[in-house]
Amino acid sequence: MHMKTHLDCIPCLIRQALNAVRMVSADAVQHASLMRQVLHWAGEMDLQQPPPVMAQRIHRQLRTITREEDPYRVAKAHQNHMALRLLPELRAQLESASDPLEQGVRLAIAGNVIDMGINGHVTEADLRQSVNQVLDDSFSGDLNVFRAALSTARNILYLADNAGEIVFDRVLIEQLGTERVTLAVRGFPVLNDATREDAQSAGLHGMVEIIDNGSDAPGTLLEQCRESFVRRFHQADLVIAKGQGNFETLSEETRNIFFLFKVKCSVIAAHTGFPVGTHVLGQSGAMASCGKPAVVSEM
Amino acid sequence: MHMKTHLDCIPCLIRQALNAVRMVSADAVQHASLMRQVLHWAGEMDLQQPPPVMAQRIHRQLRTITREEDPYRVAKAHQNHMALRLLPELRAQLESASDPLEQGVRLAIAGNVIDMGINGHVTEADLRQSVNQVLDDSFSGDLNVFRAALSTARNILYLADNAGEIVFDRVLIEQLGTERVTLAVRGFPVLNDATREDAQSAGLHGMVEIIDNGSDAPGTLLEQCRESFVRRFHQADLVIAKGQGNFETLSEETRNIFFLFKVKCSVIAAHTGFPVGTHVLGQSGAMASCGKPAVVSEM
Repeated sequence: MHMKTHLDCIPCLIRQALNAVRMVSADAVQHASLMRQVLHWAGEMDLQQPPPVMAQRIHRQLRTITREEDPYRVAKAHQNHMALRLLPELRAQLESASDPLEQGVRLAIAGNVIDMGINGHVTEADLRQSVNQVLDDSFSGDLNVFRAALSTARNILYLADNAGEIVFDRVLIEQLGTERVTLAVRGFPVLNDATREDAQSAGLHGMVEIIDNGSDAPGTLLEQCRESFVRRFHQADLVIAKGQGNFETLSEETRNIFFLFKVKCSVIAAHTGFPVGTHVLGQSGAMASCGKPAVVSEM
Repeated sequence: MHMKTHLDCIPCLIRQALNAVRMVSADAVQHASLMRQVLHWAGEMDLQQPPPVMAQRIHRQLRTITREEDPYRVAKAHQNHMALRLLPELRAQLESASDPLEQGVRLAIAGNVIDMGINGHVTEADLRQSVNQVLDDSFSGDLNVFRAALSTARNILYLADNAGEIVFDRVLIEQLGTERVTLAVRGFPVLNDATREDAQSAGLHGMVEIIDNGSDAPGTLLEQCRESFVRRFHQADLVIAKGQGNFETLSEETRNIFFLFKVKCSVIAAHTGFPVGTHVLGQSGAMASCGKPAVVSEM
């Protein structure tokens, strides 16, 4: 189960499509062609589906018209590289923290600023600012509930979100204990979402088992994922899902999931009850059982 | 001649459609219905036309689905009333100004903040803030060129923009000399654009001749305007056009027009070369002859 698409998502998805086609092509004819196609789809879209379904369709079309299997490859390589340069600092921050788990959670959420759906041009300065901000701000979520869930979990499935961000995930994963973590990435390139190649660039191969979900959606649409992934999803003692895309597609699943993300739009703000910009460690379950956002205490 | 619609206008027009249908209807079925219709049109739109053509179509559909001839009547009455309450203050500011014409121009531009396409909920505090801001800020345009044009004009055609704003126009019109001014309003209700009824509410009847352009576009699409209006448009010694809608539809006309408006979006910012928020007294002619924005000096 997942979120629905709100009418407010539509102009935003169309704006994202325009940003995306401009990002990967300089051809004005391709820009107009993608826009007309997206508008046509949007006019007929099934609003019962979550927003990543439309984003998936947009990016498939983008790959078709540009004839590029992965139009974001260069951007993703840059993002991974940028984040890797910060890795020693991130680790140092973790080592000096009084509560390394909390610090790891904060840093993992900080990495969620690298989202090309929302902002196509995240710089190293933006990244540093995001890190400083997440360390200064309070965040919403009950870390003790997360800590308790971790204490009994023998195997953890960690759903990655974006390239670059995945380096920040590595810092938290090292904290969780690499031997019990399986990292899941997208099955195919879509936007700047992390694939197996990005997990390798972030140095996570050899450190944890890496699986891919078999899908090219910028989220986790279980009905589209490969069977082996879905089995692992249901068998894991604990699922950690990064980013808004994973939240939008899994927020109403009945199994226990911890969502780590930054609230990036008014629709998610209304859905979760947290203002735009909030750093969230949110737990499913309450959301799934009552159909309302989980009430999580301010830390 | 007029501006074209940019691809960037599309998500904005769709966002405006959503704001508009929510403004005039509480029925979620009507919201979705308008959105699907607008997306369909947008997918097939002629980008050679200016943005108000799509806005016109959206608002026609809005009037059809709500079965209201003027869904903004109450909002417009409120805006006129709000602006009329400020009228004594506006006049006092004009009387104490060292250059009353400049002050009149500034106030007329300040009134352009009442634009329900951009902001559905302009309050009296917003209006006061807009007035203070326009009086403090420099504005872009050459007032001396405008003054010289006024000095020889025997008849002036003043194209109004929005309800409420028209009260601010009244202050400038009083300064221009009412006997030589003809005020033109929209031919039919569209958005919160000023119609004959609003000109009357603003107290302009009996003060100047009021004509309507015969069209329901939120701008001035000459090819849709009644013949008598078009004749007056071409015969006037000077045309003053208020607001972005009139700018978008008339910016490339070959006749001399002074545009008074606030830059409200990135497309107009790029087109004019002025940042969003700039108060502009812009002259056509230069724009029309070279196809580029007029270079107007900072005051």
